[in-house]
Amino acid sequence: MSSKLWGGRFAATNEEWVDSFGASISFDQQLVAEDIQGSLAHVSMLGATGILPPDDVALIKSGLTTLAQRARAGELTYREANEDIHLNIEQLLHDEIGPVAGKLHTGRSRNDQVATDLHLYLKKEVIHATDLLTKLQAVIVQLATDHVYTVMPGYTHLQRAQPISFAHHLLAYFWMLERDKERFRDSLKRVDLSPLGASALAGTTFPIDRHLSADLLGFSKPYANSLDAVSDRDFAVEYLSNASLVMMHLSRLCEELIVWSTDEFNFIELSDTFATGSSIMPQKKNPDMAELIRGKTGRVYGDLVGLLTVLKGIPLAYNKDMQEDKEGVFDTAHTLAGSLTIMAGMLESMTVNVDHLAETTTKDFSNATELADYLAAKQVPFRQAHEIVGKLVLQCIQAQHYLADLTLAQLQAAHPLFEADIYTVLQPQTAVARRNSFGGTGFEQVLQQLEQAKDAL
Amino acid sequence: MSSKLWGGRFAATNEEWVDSFGASISFDQQLVAEDIQGSLAHVSMLGATGILPPDDVALIKSGLTTLAQRARAGELTYREANEDIHLNIEQLLHDEIGPVAGKLHTGRSRNDQVATDLHLYLKKEVIHATDLLTKLQAVIVQLATDHVYTVMPGYTHLQRAQPISFAHHLLAYFWMLERDKERFRDSLKRVDLSPLGASALAGTTFPIDRHLSADLLGFSKPYANSLDAVSDRDFAVEYLSNASLVMMHLSRLCEELIVWSTDEFNFIELSDTFATGSSIMPQKKNPDMAELIRGKTGRVYGDLVGLLTVLKGIPLAYNKDMQEDKEGVFDTAHTLAGSLTIMAGMLESMTVNVDHLAETTTKDFSNATELADYLAAKQVPFRQAHEIVGKLVLQCIQAQHYLADLTLAQLQAAHPLFEADIYTVLQPQTAVARRNSFGGTGFEQVLQQLEQAKDAL
Amino acid sequence: MSSKLWGGRFAATNEEWVDSFGASISFDQQLVAEDIQGSLAHVSMLGATGILPPDDVALIKSGLTTLAQRARAGELTYREANEDIHLNIEQLLHDEIGPVAGKLHTGRSRNDQVATDLHLYLKKEVIHATDLLTKLQAVIVQLATDHVYTVMPGYTHLQRAQPISFAHHLLAYFWMLERDKERFRDSLKRVDLSPLGASALAGTTFPIDRHLSADLLGFSKPYANSLDAVSDRDFAVEYLSNASLVMMHLSRLCEELIVWSTDEFNFIELSDTFATGSSIMPQKKNPDMAELIRGKTGRVYGDLVGLLTVLKGIPLAYNKDMQEDKEGVFDTAHTLAGSLTIMAGMLESMTVNVDHLAETTTKDFSNATELADYLAAKQVPFRQAHEIVGKLVLQCIQAQHYLADLTLAQLQAAHPLFEADIYTVLQPQTAVARRNSFGGTGFEQVLQQLEQAKDAL
Amino acid sequence: MSSKLWGGRFAATNEEWVDSFGASISFDQQLVAEDIQGSLAHVSMLGATGILPPDDVALIKSGLTTLAQRARAGELTYREANEDIHLNIEQLLHDEIGPVAGKLHTGRSRNDQVATDLHLYLKKEVIHATDLLTKLQAVIVQLATDHVYTVMPGYTHLQRAQPISFAHHLLAYFWMLERDKERFRDSLKRVDLSPLGASALAGTTFPIDRHLSADLLGFSKPYANSLDAVSDRDFAVEYLSNASLVMMHLSRLCEELIVWSTDEFNFIELSDTFATGSSIMPQKKNPDMAELIRGKTGRVYGDLVGLLTVLKGIPLAYNKDMQEDKEGVFDTAHTLAGSLTIMAGMLESMTVNVDHLAETTTKDFSNATELADYLAAKQVPFRQAHEIVGKLVLQCIQAQHYLADLTLAQLQAAHPLFEADIYTVLQPQTAVARRNSFGGTGFEQVLQQLEQAKDAL
Repeated sequence: MSSKLWGGRFAATNEEWVDSFGASISFDQQLVAEDIQGSLAHVSMLGATGILPPDDVALIKSGLTTLAQRARAGELTYREANEDIHLNIEQLLHDEIGPVAGKLHTGRSRNDQVATDLHLYLKKEVIHATDLLTKLQAVIVQLATDHVYTVMPGYTHLQRAQPISFAHHLLAYFWMLERDKERFRDSLKRVDLSPLGASALAGTTFPIDRHLSADLLGFSKPYANSLDAVSDRDFAVEYLSNASLVMMHLSRLCEELIVWSTDEFNFIELSDTFATGSSIMPQKKNPDMAELIRGKTGRVYGDLVGLLTVLKGIPLAYNKDMQEDKEGVFDTAHTLAGSLTIMAGMLESMTVNVDHLAETTTKDFSNATELADYLAAKQVPFRQAHEIVGKLVLQCIQAQHYLADLTLAQLQAAHPLFEADIYTVLQPQTAVARRNSFGGTGFEQVLQQLEQAKDAL
Repeated sequence: MSSKLWGGRFAATNEEWVDSFGASISFDQQLVAEDIQGSLAHVSMLGATGILPPDDVALIKSGLTTLAQRARAGELTYREANEDIHLNIEQLLHDEIGPVAGKLHTGRSRNDQVATDLHLYLKKEVIHATDLLTKLQAVIVQLATDHVYTVMPGYTHLQRAQPISFAHHLLAYFWMLERDKERFRDSLKRVDLSPLGASALAGTTFPIDRHLSADLLGFSKPYANSLDAVSDRDFAVEYLSNASLVMMHLSRLCEELIVWSTDEFNFIELSDTFATGSSIMPQKKNPDMAELIRGKTGRVYGDLVGLLTVLKGIPLAYNKDMQEDKEGVFDTAHTLAGSLTIMAGMLESMTVNVDHLAETTTKDFSNATELADYLAAKQVPFRQAHEIVGKLVLQCIQAQHYLADLTLAQLQAAHPLFEADIYTVLQPQTAVARRNSFGGTGFEQVLQQLEQAKDAL
Repeated sequence: MSSKLWGGRFAATNEEWVDSFGASISFDQQLVAEDIQGSLAHVSMLGATGILPPDDVALIKSGLTTLAQRARAGELTYREANEDIHLNIEQLLHDEIGPVAGKLHTGRSRNDQVATDLHLYLKKEVIHATDLLTKLQAVIVQLATDHVYTVMPGYTHLQRAQPISFAHHLLAYFWMLERDKERFRDSLKRVDLSPLGASALAGTTFPIDRHLSADLLGFSKPYANSLDAVSDRDFAVEYLSNASLVMMHLSRLCEELIVWSTDEFNFIELSDTFATGSSIMPQKKNPDMAELIRGKTGRVYGDLVGLLTVLKGIPLAYNKDMQEDKEGVFDTAHTLAGSLTIMAGMLESMTVNVDHLAETTTKDFSNATELADYLAAKQVPFRQAHEIVGKLVLQCIQAQHYLADLTLAQLQAAHPLFEADIYTVLQPQTAVARRNSFGGTGFEQVLQQLEQAKDAL
Repeated sequence: MSSKLWGGRFAATNEEWVDSFGASISFDQQLVAEDIQGSLAHVSMLGATGILPPDDVALIKSGLTTLAQRARAGELTYREANEDIHLNIEQLLHDEIGPVAGKLHTGRSRNDQVATDLHLYLKKEVIHATDLLTKLQAVIVQLATDHVYTVMPGYTHLQRAQPISFAHHLLAYFWMLERDKERFRDSLKRVDLSPLGASALAGTTFPIDRHLSADLLGFSKPYANSLDAVSDRDFAVEYLSNASLVMMHLSRLCEELIVWSTDEFNFIELSDTFATGSSIMPQKKNPDMAELIRGKTGRVYGDLVGLLTVLKGIPLAYNKDMQEDKEGVFDTAHTLAGSLTIMAGMLESMTVNVDHLAETTTKDFSNATELADYLAAKQVPFRQAHEIVGKLVLQCIQAQHYLADLTLAQLQAAHPLFEADIYTVLQPQTAVARRNSFGGTGFEQVLQQLEQAKDAL
């Protein structure tokens, strides 16, 4: 029976539905470019080392090049009976150039071939992710540049805490994304390895040159151990884990965008492009994209858990379980690219309600720490200062006004060290400006931080 | 701009790539049958309650019926700009019957509509899963019936422990699957509820009859609270959780099939239909299907984690995050059906190496407990008996023979209560037969257990 | 060597640090009551079946009873060298009554013993969870009873959607918790099974009576298959999965409490008992308990993933991996009990800012659906009505007023079917009252729903 | 009420059980050394910048030094009412030196303080993990050095594939662990940052020197953004993720040790120190430690999922949810250290059954690839060669012998290019030796790989 390339030893053929369950061609056809690229490097190496004669090499390369063109044009037809992208391409090559196609598989196996494809794919995607992260960071830097002097309430526990610069808040996300990039870049050295030539698990008897094929594929070096080369999926787990952290960061920003878009907060308005309506409520303008990105965090976490589960407790070397490595990776790559792009567009086009923000911090207690710091700077132990101010806040709440509404007499009744300059200290702009410690929200610091951010881009 | 059904309030249109990120039509088109079924029930109810005049109802029903036929024939074309299956169908209905199509959405919203679709889908899938579980159980019962008297080593810690009936081992899986069915059936009462008519979140001002539409859809009753009706995805999480347990069970059985298929264990041989070869090693016969099912456990765990993550910490009622509920559910339903079907075929067609199994338990120490029980039955405290036999085992290992090779003198030197009948006790068949406690591996018990299993089917 | 009860076969002793890694006594001592309870039932059964003579049975029972008392008094000292609670209790029994203690282990094994302990523990915890759920539901019912006529904005996408009854919103959680209880109760039939007497994996040669020991422990019946009895941890996974759903529900409610407690929403005020302050900002009143419960969702999800991972791909029957089943279960039980209790206290003691809520819905567009429904009731196709109202909303936003501020002329310019009664329809109380479909937010419906809820308690 | 350090603003006190739910002192007391270390650096900085007078600084340092000594001696008593390690230490300091203790909290907050503690803790644990990984690698290198020429069957799909060097198999794990170390080291730059002085969220009005306090704590630099500094838990997620990969690798090795320890494989024997017995079956020698490590993979995966869940969708800056960051990290650190240590001891002390291994590959088909390669080297297309050999394997199975038992005539009937040298090629030692491609199992390559591994250590 000839339709299975490994069928010699078998007495019966697989039934179609079993084939269908086992086949990966429905999704691994996404790797067609990488698969042909890997085969081209392999056959070039087989030629350079004299394992295959020049004529065979030329014929195979020509056939593969034709297939690559047809793949780009969307003209290749895959068959489920040929299981995966590797056997499909080999069969198509056979159709193209005849039996010499069978020489391509000399000194390699599907085990190192699929690992090579995935390394090529993820190397591309890791770089893609860092590019998209940079673009999003650039949008944040631009927005922050516009809003250094926009004062907003800073929150802890979603309670107003202290007035801060809106730029400062935005830049917190800049640094998260910077770490995300750093992690992707660190991971690159584990992605940038060639498994090609590890063969089934043990290397090969042919005098192949793995350094050459690694070079041809742009990989930094071949794996040092052939069993490891075909068994390793760490680089895929690491990708999913790094992507999970990106999504976690985006989910936090989305949560804020959603909260800020409420009637109640009213800090921003998303552009119509990134909002949607309701099929029943005509007034609705929903922050759908922000919600969707937040929701898609679940999918990426799930992909990570999926692959970790697959790999738990399976012996060396290749096991079919590992075929389950790809769909989650593809799904995450797709999700990551979409989420980063949409987020950049959403931030770029949103309106910041500057006037409303300016007003908020004049009508709350987010300046209470100023009072405590004021006393502490005059050597009142901070804990004591904290308690005094706590009582002043309670007094204001009961009297239904704010701290700046207290008379100097009232303040001095609480502690004699209060003086008239306290009223300047209590103004939001002053409160922000005075928080001028390194990395703090003081305008001067934020301007310096912006320079650091621009340098990092 | 008219292509968006909710666009009245919006000044600008979404760009195409944002549409694409937000659209669900690429996957929720799988719900087309459920969506039309829901609409048919809804419009019938609108007619029965007099909310819509009979002519409108007749026209809408006729249009929906046409769409259902075209859907089955694969003739419907969906547009991404119409976001999801609901708006696509509504637009197609509009194309079919004109503006009266706009009356279908009276007294409902996409929020209750999508929940209704998912309930209909999962009710079907839960029943499907229980059917497939029953089929797999039937295969197990048949195989167990054939192998009541096939003795094999029972394992703990993958170390030979005590000889058991192969049927007994197989039936352990029967009961796991029985619990799986039980869980699915229990879950049905939470799937079998109608959200239809909950509308956006708060019910509707129209005098709809939710009990009637629930009846028409075959649901046991409507949700008691409209906010809950549109926010609830428990039934989907529960499905994923129940499916995770099924996959966990299958992963354990797969692990055993893989181990049993090794050259070293050699307990079974999978049929060629359920094994595959190697692209490089001609002798290989790989238990690919068993490995693949074991691997697919990861995917289902991942789907569960994904949805749990989506739902964590989102406020009432509907949020767009919840659009992420479907793909994981579809993926799990597909995986579950495939895995159960393949497992049944794999078990049904495998060969049990009965002769080899018979031999194994004659050349090991899995009968050691017999000696300890023998002494304990003569009122030697079990702990003391255990220690005596432990030393006899060590003595045998050092002498490179087995317990049945010890002379009576040697045995009596260890403890005077040993008598000649001990040699019968040590035979594997006797060892199995004597473990005749309820639920034990004694042949008599296994036959009774088989009857219980058949009754349960 | 006597310190290990299974040491007979071993030539060397374990080093202390290996013991420590393998020992479970540091956490499974929480099962001391269950372990002794299981042993008492087992020895009673051994007596009733004549396997042990009455004197031995009496002595063992007396010893166990003494140990149980000392355990309750906190007077037992466990040794890590004795690994787990089972061997510790057996050793302590030996210290108490001498070598006859060694007879207790006749016809059982640690494998069925530990499974029995966990079943006893979880049966108790499942019932405990349903009790705490009921208490929380009662608090919700009381709060809802007080707030049937408190109108608040209902949200989708955290955007104001339609005015609803606060009671209606609260009752949505009632039904989630009702499903949680239902799931726990459904699970009980899988918890309420006795593994005792399954012995190591295969049953025993002693004429034990597993139905009797099951009865004595209050279990409904013994497991039908001994391998399954010692290998099954489904009931623990199911518990973790059900607990994950509870935590997910609580995380949603916590998110709402946190959002409602903000200065911006200001819908509720948590009592001082359930809020905390800041070490630096004197004015802060943080909803710490709500945040903490939301955060603890992660821990329970993690426990679920942990156990699912442990069980993936391990062969029958008992494997040491399964020792990892307990800590996650204990952690979840502790977390669940704490979270449900705190949530009840938090809801019970919070203040609802009724006046502020009343005001909110008079100054927003949450009554826009009323307009669309008004037209649709007059047979304007809903889609057309929706678009007309969308444009009116936009008109209002641009004119900086609300829908009720439109003149009748303006309304009739949008559609001639508007008449003077529209102004009544636009009032929030009317809007709520008119949404009187089954399960809707209409006051009449909410009162009926409250009755249903009380009946369910 | 004075027992709460933040209580000034509050009218009522928390009840004890609420305190208990919210308190973290039961677990964060593990950070006592880090907490005091952080405070010492902070107060030194407050002195150096003149914010506090020298006398206060001296007194506070002296008090903290005393507390550090008492902590090491186990003499500190913590109170739940003081919530966490930070307030407990502050209160104890107050008890020690009076109200001046209240000055320590100048210019910092618990938010930056707890982040500082966790950074200090994880920096230590990351380095600890790399040390333990190195130790385990050294054991692997030693074992591999002893077994370069030990031939064993290499497996794919747990089916015998090709003969390999046992050293080669072991070294695959060396490289996995090398990547694990690399990842931990890469992560260090994100752990090695100082949040101290970020204060509550926005920095401080005091002229603090964050670079100085970072230096004093041995951190490379301070965080650039104060909101990020207190909100960032990436470094903890990254630690859990890296630990998950280590555990995944160990789980694979454990699976192999368990399989190799079976009666059926019999490749190794674990030392008595790392195996345990059965409470009922005297002959058992269970690979408990390997199973336990495999099982503990679940716990670490669970800790990862737990923290990812906690962080999903929470707004900036600090939220109480984040208190849930610590227990999972502590649990993983403990698990990782134990697992790596036990694994090293287990490998170091196990016996490799060299004679049995030598025998295995002479009685199987793992040399089949040699035949296919033999023909391919003579320019028979590999696919054709593969099919020819597949048929020879089938022929042998039917005749119940192996490939080396075929006569030259039989071989030449399959393909005329077979010659007498084929019998040398078929010998396992030859088969291994000839697989001499880079990273392959050829002895020469393995020796070179060992040198690479030693260089890496």
